[in-house]
Amino acid sequence: MRYKIIILCLLISMSAALQADVTHSEKTQACLECHASLHPGLVADWLASSHARTSLAEAFKREGLERKISVASLPAKGTGTSIGCAECHTLNPDSHGDTVNHADYKVHTVVTPEDCAACHPVERDEFRENVMSRAHGNLMGNPVYADLVKNISGVPAMPGNKLSWKEPSAENLADSCLFCHGTEVKVKKKVVKETDFGDVEVPVLTGWPNQGTGRVNPDSSLGSCAACHTRHLFSVETARKPATCGGCHKGPDVPAYKVYKVSKHGALYDSHSDKYNFSAVPWVVGRDFTAPTCAACHMSLITDTEGNVLAKRSHMVADRLEKRIFGLIYSHAHPKSPDTTIIKHKSGLPLPTGLDGTEAEEYLISKEEQEKRLTRMKTICLGCHSAGWTEGHFAKLDASVSYADSAVKVATGLLVAAWDKEGKGYPSKISSIFDEHVERLWIKTWLFYANSVRFAAAMAGADYGTFADGRWQLNETITEIERILTEK
Amino acid sequence: MRYKIIILCLLISMSAALQADVTHSEKTQACLECHASLHPGLVADWLASSHARTSLAEAFKREGLERKISVASLPAKGTGTSIGCAECHTLNPDSHGDTVNHADYKVHTVVTPEDCAACHPVERDEFRENVMSRAHGNLMGNPVYADLVKNISGVPAMPGNKLSWKEPSAENLADSCLFCHGTEVKVKKKVVKETDFGDVEVPVLTGWPNQGTGRVNPDSSLGSCAACHTRHLFSVETARKPATCGGCHKGPDVPAYKVYKVSKHGALYDSHSDKYNFSAVPWVVGRDFTAPTCAACHMSLITDTEGNVLAKRSHMVADRLEKRIFGLIYSHAHPKSPDTTIIKHKSGLPLPTGLDGTEAEEYLISKEEQEKRLTRMKTICLGCHSAGWTEGHFAKLDASVSYADSAVKVATGLLVAAWDKEGKGYPSKISSIFDEHVERLWIKTWLFYANSVRFAAAMAGADYGTFADGRWQLNETITEIERILTEK
Amino acid sequence: MRYKIIILCLLISMSAALQADVTHSEKTQACLECHASLHPGLVADWLASSHARTSLAEAFKREGLERKISVASLPAKGTGTSIGCAECHTLNPDSHGDTVNHADYKVHTVVTPEDCAACHPVERDEFRENVMSRAHGNLMGNPVYADLVKNISGVPAMPGNKLSWKEPSAENLADSCLFCHGTEVKVKKKVVKETDFGDVEVPVLTGWPNQGTGRVNPDSSLGSCAACHTRHLFSVETARKPATCGGCHKGPDVPAYKVYKVSKHGALYDSHSDKYNFSAVPWVVGRDFTAPTCAACHMSLITDTEGNVLAKRSHMVADRLEKRIFGLIYSHAHPKSPDTTIIKHKSGLPLPTGLDGTEAEEYLISKEEQEKRLTRMKTICLGCHSAGWTEGHFAKLDASVSYADSAVKVATGLLVAAWDKEGKGYPSKISSIFDEHVERLWIKTWLFYANSVRFAAAMAGADYGTFADGRWQLNETITEIERILTEK
Repeated sequence: MRYKIIILCLLISMSAALQADVTHSEKTQACLECHASLHPGLVADWLASSHARTSLAEAFKREGLERKISVASLPAKGTGTSIGCAECHTLNPDSHGDTVNHADYKVHTVVTPEDCAACHPVERDEFRENVMSRAHGNLMGNPVYADLVKNISGVPAMPGNKLSWKEPSAENLADSCLFCHGTEVKVKKKVVKETDFGDVEVPVLTGWPNQGTGRVNPDSSLGSCAACHTRHLFSVETARKPATCGGCHKGPDVPAYKVYKVSKHGALYDSHSDKYNFSAVPWVVGRDFTAPTCAACHMSLITDTEGNVLAKRSHMVADRLEKRIFGLIYSHAHPKSPDTTIIKHKSGLPLPTGLDGTEAEEYLISKEEQEKRLTRMKTICLGCHSAGWTEGHFAKLDASVSYADSAVKVATGLLVAAWDKEGKGYPSKISSIFDEHVERLWIKTWLFYANSVRFAAAMAGADYGTFADGRWQLNETITEIERILTEK
Repeated sequence: MRYKIIILCLLISMSAALQADVTHSEKTQACLECHASLHPGLVADWLASSHARTSLAEAFKREGLERKISVASLPAKGTGTSIGCAECHTLNPDSHGDTVNHADYKVHTVVTPEDCAACHPVERDEFRENVMSRAHGNLMGNPVYADLVKNISGVPAMPGNKLSWKEPSAENLADSCLFCHGTEVKVKKKVVKETDFGDVEVPVLTGWPNQGTGRVNPDSSLGSCAACHTRHLFSVETARKPATCGGCHKGPDVPAYKVYKVSKHGALYDSHSDKYNFSAVPWVVGRDFTAPTCAACHMSLITDTEGNVLAKRSHMVADRLEKRIFGLIYSHAHPKSPDTTIIKHKSGLPLPTGLDGTEAEEYLISKEEQEKRLTRMKTICLGCHSAGWTEGHFAKLDASVSYADSAVKVATGLLVAAWDKEGKGYPSKISSIFDEHVERLWIKTWLFYANSVRFAAAMAGADYGTFADGRWQLNETITEIERILTEK
Repeated sequence: MRYKIIILCLLISMSAALQADVTHSEKTQACLECHASLHPGLVADWLASSHARTSLAEAFKREGLERKISVASLPAKGTGTSIGCAECHTLNPDSHGDTVNHADYKVHTVVTPEDCAACHPVERDEFRENVMSRAHGNLMGNPVYADLVKNISGVPAMPGNKLSWKEPSAENLADSCLFCHGTEVKVKKKVVKETDFGDVEVPVLTGWPNQGTGRVNPDSSLGSCAACHTRHLFSVETARKPATCGGCHKGPDVPAYKVYKVSKHGALYDSHSDKYNFSAVPWVVGRDFTAPTCAACHMSLITDTEGNVLAKRSHMVADRLEKRIFGLIYSHAHPKSPDTTIIKHKSGLPLPTGLDGTEAEEYLISKEEQEKRLTRMKTICLGCHSAGWTEGHFAKLDASVSYADSAVKVATGLLVAAWDKEGKGYPSKISSIFDEHVERLWIKTWLFYANSVRFAAAMAGADYGTFADGRWQLNETITEIERILTEK
């Protein structure tokens, strides 16, 4: 034990040495006393983080665009020590259902956006308006999507020699859709465990571990900042690098990361990003980086070399996006509310677009708002590109979106006509519109291929719009649907 | 404005400091006066480039293999300043349809191989002989391929309840096939725009932006050097790194980049390339790098540590290739002319091989030429591998190519037999041989799977020859075609 | 020639300078005299290796966990020079069928685990117990798998207008399944070749080149250390980096590398591994790295910052694995013997699980052994994660494995029922259970999709369990099989 404390002190002094005047709070030192040796990797990440090497008071001294925290004023006390274990894991103990009595402290496991908001309230507020914070409820609380989820992750069975799908277990779902959308983390019970360090109370959680963007937390808050600001390094470098986004935006439904990798931006990133500065705040185009990453265009505070702001930092990602190219089932203007379960299309469907391609307009942002958001994005493009280049790019995007929507309309028309003939070997929409083979082919046209076409166009990564889950697959699948339905 | 000029001067002096005696021309300084603040990212890339840090006169002082430019002699004047904005964007004003009166200069937007040839004429000449410079015309000017393009990117419709395909719009095509093959860039009109810097004339272009290798330019030249030498850094490092090639050579039709990544070469690159020198000219194997990149084997000037040339620099990529493993529809000897629209197979098809597998011999290079090119490639292999290893490698490649060609022949035989029965539910070749579902399955056998098998063999990336769009998919698709045609 | 010798001496002295007191043996110097100029890339890699820069005697001086060799004691002589060409390529000449008289030495081409065992006997012993060393025989010597191989890589033909599959050639197989599984390397003959350096005897090998993990060598040993410890750098850095594993573990059957890349571990590796130390032995979590690579969790000697061993080095990869999630055709306990051809399921099939999902228990490790192995893995997890996090992770893995096994059972049930109806258009199991289209769809359910689901769960890379060859494809393919069989 003595040996462990010596090592701990060494680690702590090493970390302190990096920024001379920051000490860890007594509470955090108490945590480290055991946890530094229990989970050396975890503690090492934290020791390398800005949280371990600065204090709230120090962070507040940075002025203007350089400031990384967003509290309006400093609290009266406790601002001189690092942001350590205890600073986050003992905040707001009463609102956390997972709070336990641990050593002499009230500690909770799941750090939530409400905890982070102690220093970053503006980011919490922005993220609340982001559909990503609602990713759990927007999926599971919408009957259409919930049925889709059941058909994706449900367990097949053959009762009475007929194929059907059983509801997936919570753990099964946590490893599929809810891995990214976020689980509901619940406290099952609290138990006392014997350990080398004495008896400790620990919460037994369901839906844990999970870092999905729309996680439902034991303090009733929504989301996980760690989805992108990976624990316990909480490095702006991590969040700015494309692989982080790729964790959830790489599959055939949202191939943004793959598109980026084959784009010119991606090729330059691959070749030259070792010379970029990924930690500077603000992030200066032409000084810190040239080829942008996902974060540069979609979230980060960007200035030019003269200090002019090209884009304000935003955790409401749709702020710079004219339209939602993730088709449900067609592209559409972004929803007004982050809670998309409230949307009702005139056809009765809880979807932003009907099967006929019309929008549920009253729930979606206006043309004016779309224009405003598009201008925000174009301002960033113009940091490196001419006006002609930029306009030409968006004209191509419009053409690709229009192509993709048209193709989805044809695929949907084939299905709708077949549903109308139900009962003669044609697919049935009574049990579900998502369970039969030909219906699944139709899902692929809008969920995989039309989306790939649009993402490829948006970020100029050609092949994902052509041969790699793009136009080829979209048009091929339409011919497959037609063949199968014609053969009936 | 004054502030902007100060920043500009700082940037310019920073760049100048890197190579003491290089100044920018007056014309280029005039460009920078506005554009440095308009597009800081673009200008930053250029300032970091060799173009900004050396002059033609300096570049000419390098002797022998170290020289990067290929003009035979220096022009009489204008060789002492950097290669800046004006040096490229004001060249040959009369031949550029996109030339406008801009400030006091005749400026064009689209820099073309003819502009680059002012300093790099040999590379322009070699690239002219490369099929890649003809990628637009070879695709769109061949009626068979043009029909394929229509079925890939065309917009589906259901007139009279029958599925058909409308010609894709120019913008739609620019985001699919022509993204890599190159668009036709045309000047629609010229307009005068009001800007913060006064009125400026700008060309309104169609087919822009585009950096496809076969772009048809407003000065009638073909190709874009920026396809690989990405603007405005024009870094040899970019062109030598595999991600650059991956922009167009990653899809299922030409999965070269993916194959490389799972090869031993790729694994070593991934692990150790941070210790390589990607800028040295010539590129010395065993000193600057060991595991090769795409460029090392296919294009770069390579010497051994004693200065012996293992491979001459070449922008005619097929120069080191025995055969074209990109099957159309079978592998074949490379075409003699970069213009492949002139090819006529004895069956009447404008293809290098007929459906029966025979070659359009008179249009393809001779056995002797094939042998010569193979020897060039083997010389590079021998830089790191023994003769036994090298021979064994190419024996495997031959076996894989032979397997792939045999499998395509069986798939094609199934289709040809079905076309002969046309009219009884069998596919029709009258409207198109590429539009129906079973025809699209056939396309995949040669365009995706046989190609993957051959590329995987060529660069020793096993899985793309096996389970990842390789033999598995090739053989599976043949059974699918057979099942569908048998069920008729 | 004189010039070459000077260069050689320069190279050698450069290398020697890196570690002052190590010289190369006379024999190795003789090799280098020609080969340094013949294959500069190969020799450059070796010169940069630890083998070139240390001696056996020096390596033995390292104590305890820092020692990289595993001989119990030093041999009496020959321990003072580097581990050069001759040290490996002239070992055990009599047991090597590929030994030739070369210059004045008995040299063999194929260096085998038995050669490496001169210094690394423990690793050789462990690897012998690893199924990977048997990857050739386990595949080709099992009649069920051999039939599968024939249907994957066999050449299709249409004798009598009926589709069938010819046995693949050895070279064809060497580029597909056996690229990773390992070829059988045989000496066809020995020939004398004229070279610039005089006449030399060389072996003509079949099955060469190959670096598959289960290669059958000319000295009768099994395996290739170079599969991971890539020649001739033999760098621990290479073996520890994930791209090396990705060479064989990236395809849809074992997408471990792809899963890793989208996991949090992968994202952190991507963002921060440039600050890791990949060469330290032992490998200290929290000092040398935080986010683990494949090797960290599965093979490497890992300690915490206090020197406590979290995991012993092991070349028997299954040592830390509770179960084999690579389904054949279901997940199962690991086989007891690395030779899996001895397994007989009670149904008569030479498989670890029957079509009904039951295990061939007597050939598989016990529950106790499974528990022991799981504990080894969890100890590593706990280096960075809490107990609750770790338990929650494995609970999800169990759920995903259970889902995947259930789905495969339904798919298999559909096939078994269809086989029973054979002769009325239903698939036939007489010739093969792997050749027809619907059978190939069934293969994909267990070989590609169920495996992807399990790998994604094991390493927390969500999308490969969902939309990227995961649950979506698994459930979709089951509906496709059902549709096809129902339409009969």
